[in-house]
Amino acid sequence: MRLVLDAMGTDERPVPDVEGAVMAARELGETIILVGPQARLEQELKKHNTTNLKIEIVNATETIEMTDKPSAVLKQKPESSMHVGMRLVRDQKADAFVTMGNTGATQAIATLGVLRRLPGVKRPAMTIIYSVSRKPTVFIDVGANADSRVDWVEQFAIMGMAYAQTALNMPNPRIATLSNGEEEGKGNELVREVQARLHALPINYIGHIEPKEILGGKTDVVVFDGFLGNVFLKTYEGTLSYFAGMLREELMSGWISKLGGLLIRSAVQRIRKRVDPDEYGGALLLGVRGVVVIGHGSGNALAVKSSLKQAYNAVKGKTIETIQARLAEFAPQSGAEE
Amino acid sequence: MRLVLDAMGTDERPVPDVEGAVMAARELGETIILVGPQARLEQELKKHNTTNLKIEIVNATETIEMTDKPSAVLKQKPESSMHVGMRLVRDQKADAFVTMGNTGATQAIATLGVLRRLPGVKRPAMTIIYSVSRKPTVFIDVGANADSRVDWVEQFAIMGMAYAQTALNMPNPRIATLSNGEEEGKGNELVREVQARLHALPINYIGHIEPKEILGGKTDVVVFDGFLGNVFLKTYEGTLSYFAGMLREELMSGWISKLGGLLIRSAVQRIRKRVDPDEYGGALLLGVRGVVVIGHGSGNALAVKSSLKQAYNAVKGKTIETIQARLAEFAPQSGAEE
Repeated sequence: MRLVLDAMGTDERPVPDVEGAVMAARELGETIILVGPQARLEQELKKHNTTNLKIEIVNATETIEMTDKPSAVLKQKPESSMHVGMRLVRDQKADAFVTMGNTGATQAIATLGVLRRLPGVKRPAMTIIYSVSRKPTVFIDVGANADSRVDWVEQFAIMGMAYAQTALNMPNPRIATLSNGEEEGKGNELVREVQARLHALPINYIGHIEPKEILGGKTDVVVFDGFLGNVFLKTYEGTLSYFAGMLREELMSGWISKLGGLLIRSAVQRIRKRVDPDEYGGALLLGVRGVVVIGHGSGNALAVKSSLKQAYNAVKGKTIETIQARLAEFAPQSGAEE
Repeated sequence: MRLVLDAMGTDERPVPDVEGAVMAARELGETIILVGPQARLEQELKKHNTTNLKIEIVNATETIEMTDKPSAVLKQKPESSMHVGMRLVRDQKADAFVTMGNTGATQAIATLGVLRRLPGVKRPAMTIIYSVSRKPTVFIDVGANADSRVDWVEQFAIMGMAYAQTALNMPNPRIATLSNGEEEGKGNELVREVQARLHALPINYIGHIEPKEILGGKTDVVVFDGFLGNVFLKTYEGTLSYFAGMLREELMSGWISKLGGLLIRSAVQRIRKRVDPDEYGGALLLGVRGVVVIGHGSGNALAVKSSLKQAYNAVKGKTIETIQARLAEFAPQSGAEE
């Protein structure tokens, strides 16, 4: 297997990117292709012991900044490490593309530029895996499509299911829609229509679900349009930080609390690990012709390695092929590209 | 001032209801009218010292259960404590109605049955006040309207502003829309259109805001359609409980953590108090002809008292009159009832 890493992705590029690639090459035993400025990457790679590791470098002369507009980079930086890296996947010289860089740019270059949509896919969707109640849960779409049609969201459910089946070892994942109540008839128009569609599919659809049930681990896949999904995730993450901030503040407000704070340090670290999104790598852009993983720009070498491993699992599990098969099987009426 | 309390609201009715009424009568010095089965309420009231307190009882022969369907109670229980209580407000024999009972039933009886909408109001909205970063923040609509039109949400902003101005002592409240990003153009179609409308009004509209900014206290009023608002609040509450549950669990996992857990008890209690929604009473149904406050059925006497105080503040601040004046002033095109 050959995994491409955009070596110019993180905020500290290419330092954590190269280190993470070395870690992944060692752990997975597969080939990692670093894409970026050749000389700079060679120099960085020399810092590491790469004996017996399969690491290659492919030169790219342009770099995409976090501040670059997705629509602009699409045409103006055709030799970016993202373009060059994805072309390797498109031309079947590699199996997956991983970057810790600009999310919007990655989406644009993948969807509209180099890779394009899989046949039958209406809209690719951002997919994230969080550990919830000690098990992985797939969230799709968490931000690619703010205004979604019912048939797009129906496809998100099928793609999310295929991902859980192939990369997370869940043969029959439970699939749910986030809503404002669990009863039939709850939800806004979009969610109600999605519910009707999903009930008609031969999938393990358990209906509407509320946030507390999601966090209680009652489903394996949560399906929403990209607007609701994005707000949900940001509310979840924001509230975790808010609680942690209050805890820090209140623990500083007296010597008994301060002492208690010292004693609960390891407990707090375990909580941090339980909610750390980097445990499962980055987000996947499902629905394009190839495995694409997008990690956080602030990620360290471990996060880079996790994202490469996530790509490895998707390739090994044949996620893309399975998405295509399921879409053809379950929603043949959605077969035509627009 | 005369405040009506549905004495058959809480799960333990009428015990906490009557106790809360006594507390409120003492603290506010105003008349509290208890509505419910006369004999039962007289008996309950005898348990308390009511010397010098202005507490009256009005008989109601029917009681609405938490399991009753809103559409059913509307016509089938015309002598319920909700109906009788709201009629007192409608007939100007009282100034506000408070219940800890069935939310959907209260909305239905207020909006479609007894009180009806204020002239010019398209849809009443559920409004809640949470303490966020140590200050009250108004959230509107948190669940009355799952499918909202742009002009309804525009009115929610005006009603929420009027509430903050009149009942929370905020002369010029900051108003924001929840979205998936702060930049112009972010959001789904509804949110983008609401943004354009609110920018055109002479209000202190600060644009789109993300969950972490809301929790950081950057706005005083958050406006959303009832579906998004409901999911947001439930995600916030669900995540707080989730974090608290993880903390409890991890603190039990070893004797050092256990000891730490004992020492941080008061810190945790302070956090609990900071995020307790009952601190500011219940939800308001804004947009009907009268002040209507709906508390949690699980609320204790203190929660009943808080809800009565919230009603008191809205009456004293002339919230209803201000809503009407602002709607006429800012959105005269919305003047016609449908």
